[in-house]
Amino acid sequence: MASFSADRAYAEALDAADQLAHFRDRFVRPNWDDVIYLNGNSLGPLPIRTQARIAEVIDQDWGIGLVRSWDKWLHVPRQAGDMIGEHLLGAEAGQVIVCDSVTVNLYKLAYAALDARPGRSVIVTDDDNFPTDRYVLAGVAAQRSCELRIIHSDIDEGISEQALAEALDDQVALVELSHVAYRSGALADMAGLTRLAHDAGALALWDLCHSAGAVPVQLDADGADLAVGCTYKYINGGPGSPAFLYVRDELQHQLRQPIWGWFGQRDQFEMGPRYEPATGITSFLAGTPDIIGAVAVEEGARLLAEAGMQQLRAKSTALTDYVIDLAGAWLSDAGIAIASPREARRRGGHVTLRHDDAFQLTQALLRTGVVADYRTPDRIRVAPAPLYTSFTQVFDGMDRLREIAASKSYADIPPDPSA
Amino acid sequence: MASFSADRAYAEALDAADQLAHFRDRFVRPNWDDVIYLNGNSLGPLPIRTQARIAEVIDQDWGIGLVRSWDKWLHVPRQAGDMIGEHLLGAEAGQVIVCDSVTVNLYKLAYAALDARPGRSVIVTDDDNFPTDRYVLAGVAAQRSCELRIIHSDIDEGISEQALAEALDDQVALVELSHVAYRSGALADMAGLTRLAHDAGALALWDLCHSAGAVPVQLDADGADLAVGCTYKYINGGPGSPAFLYVRDELQHQLRQPIWGWFGQRDQFEMGPRYEPATGITSFLAGTPDIIGAVAVEEGARLLAEAGMQQLRAKSTALTDYVIDLAGAWLSDAGIAIASPREARRRGGHVTLRHDDAFQLTQALLRTGVVADYRTPDRIRVAPAPLYTSFTQVFDGMDRLREIAASKSYADIPPDPSA
Repeated sequence: MASFSADRAYAEALDAADQLAHFRDRFVRPNWDDVIYLNGNSLGPLPIRTQARIAEVIDQDWGIGLVRSWDKWLHVPRQAGDMIGEHLLGAEAGQVIVCDSVTVNLYKLAYAALDARPGRSVIVTDDDNFPTDRYVLAGVAAQRSCELRIIHSDIDEGISEQALAEALDDQVALVELSHVAYRSGALADMAGLTRLAHDAGALALWDLCHSAGAVPVQLDADGADLAVGCTYKYINGGPGSPAFLYVRDELQHQLRQPIWGWFGQRDQFEMGPRYEPATGITSFLAGTPDIIGAVAVEEGARLLAEAGMQQLRAKSTALTDYVIDLAGAWLSDAGIAIASPREARRRGGHVTLRHDDAFQLTQALLRTGVVADYRTPDRIRVAPAPLYTSFTQVFDGMDRLREIAASKSYADIPPDPSA
Repeated sequence: MASFSADRAYAEALDAADQLAHFRDRFVRPNWDDVIYLNGNSLGPLPIRTQARIAEVIDQDWGIGLVRSWDKWLHVPRQAGDMIGEHLLGAEAGQVIVCDSVTVNLYKLAYAALDARPGRSVIVTDDDNFPTDRYVLAGVAAQRSCELRIIHSDIDEGISEQALAEALDDQVALVELSHVAYRSGALADMAGLTRLAHDAGALALWDLCHSAGAVPVQLDADGADLAVGCTYKYINGGPGSPAFLYVRDELQHQLRQPIWGWFGQRDQFEMGPRYEPATGITSFLAGTPDIIGAVAVEEGARLLAEAGMQQLRAKSTALTDYVIDLAGAWLSDAGIAIASPREARRRGGHVTLRHDDAFQLTQALLRTGVVADYRTPDRIRVAPAPLYTSFTQVFDGMDRLREIAASKSYADIPPDPSA
């Protein structure tokens, strides 16, 4: 491959050589010609097979099969979990299940982790973690009279081993971190940070919202104890599709989650007097799971599996390298800086740019059909997903950003109302 | 209307006079001619408008609109909640929201209720309450070092005022009961039992799973403090559709639910350092809500609203009276007894029958195309939903049960494997 050049022919050559290019035809095209969608880290697009499978579940299983379809639906949360686990998360079968939201799953696992480390009363997380992580842990800490110890994370570069090491002691029960930082896209060293947590006797809970389907994850090999993640970003499960959770095999009988519901019960239809948790990952279910959503998750994960996470990662780093190269060539003069790690191996699936007028720039991009997103206080996230984003789309999107920034054509847009 | 007669012409006359009969055409017919569906108390069928609306949300809002559709999706949980609240639950706007599962919502509200009654450490429920209610309360009680005080409920007749009154004292923080008993269909006196709870200084939390959409509920008028319910039974929201919760207006600022997530945050996209709950019912959200499910709930509730809960209730009691009359005429000789209150005003939307071979009878019914359901240890639940069940379907279904019971044609079916 020729070295970087900031003309469109270079992007076209990269597209011509892209072995994954045909996967864009597997989506219900959101007017690909009109829209440059660089926001799959927020909501992924609709796979054609998912559209068909949901219609099948609704029209046939629900419409015709009615309640009798529960015989197969009962297996969907584990089936979808195993599909994600095996192909996206490096997790052997029986450790991942699809249910509830990330927030609820974080609550369940953080609560259970505290019980599994009696005598310890500290939860560690970082100050740039996603809000729901920080909020749910603050809630659990308040309820359990624990300390929430918040380490500093570099807003561009992510969490350092040193910062975590300094926060660890024999009071720490749980370390909860995001694998890929939602703002900068910085990729944490899961194996190294988990080892630090374990050396201090703590459990490690990983939030995979921005890494599941974006980077190959190795939960089993990296020694992670617990994980949660969402499925509407890179797994393309649709708006509010159910989250997943992972509990390492050998911890499943030690951990008891706090929300005791009939789907986590050993014999659900015996309807016995006492709650007796099911064995295995099923004990981490609570209430009736969202079946339509879980089916969409299964299909989304199947599509990623077909492309292969290694191949997706290779294209993803090529795409984000390209964003960085174009930003370096075109945007620094306009005061737009790169706010993500420069090295591909330290990044997830998106690149973040920084500018004081980030909110207006993102709005102006949207007017030209480029969907990126703004994050407080001054960030623009650019997420070229390898399953459906081309190099020419990246070129065109960045080109429009260059024009907007140079011409200040966003001057009519009012600033972020929430700032 | 002529008085009861056990011949089919009587059923046909009732159908001819039924003002709601045309509503069955609003469903994707699950082969109505082949199937007699008496199980809408487990999973309601698919309304045509719901099928179309889900397709619209998937194909247009997700497929084409992508992340930009969140501008409208953000309002769906409250919109669907208000639709249920106003038309089905007797709740003014702003008190009901659609989110999570019944189990998770019970957890959130029971936990919050304990905090709202400091110095009190008892939760009261009944021994015939639905398993998930008993389990989740047992979990909360264990975690909060509270006592779960379980009153006796008559398995056929439901909860008596006396049983509750005897369990109440100044230690009780919360009374949690089901409005319609899942097994017998007995309808509790919400106003009377709530008054007893209030007289003792406790909060009342009602489970409306078997009453929402089945009987007119008057949460505001009856003084209920809190409620939860599912939407996949009489509201026809589909498999695993999200639940709802109700928090009385004046309690919303007093109660703080324990699962602190970004959807319950005051300014969700500010992503600030501290969790500050939103005002109003929104503070009872946790993570990202299931949008496809919530839209289905809104459509399901809209269809019930169009028919009108008073009209539905009138037909429902006529249908269940008819089940009881036919059972009295045909089934007592075969040892099948009625295990629901005889008076219509004391019943919800289903009638329960009792027989030692209930499991096999239900299986045998299924072979003849009649879908009812079995509940341990010896119950058959028959739920003729007024929106789509006809009197002739009830006649035919009961007629097949009579044949099966008289001929013992179920003898080849093995007994309940979980018993």
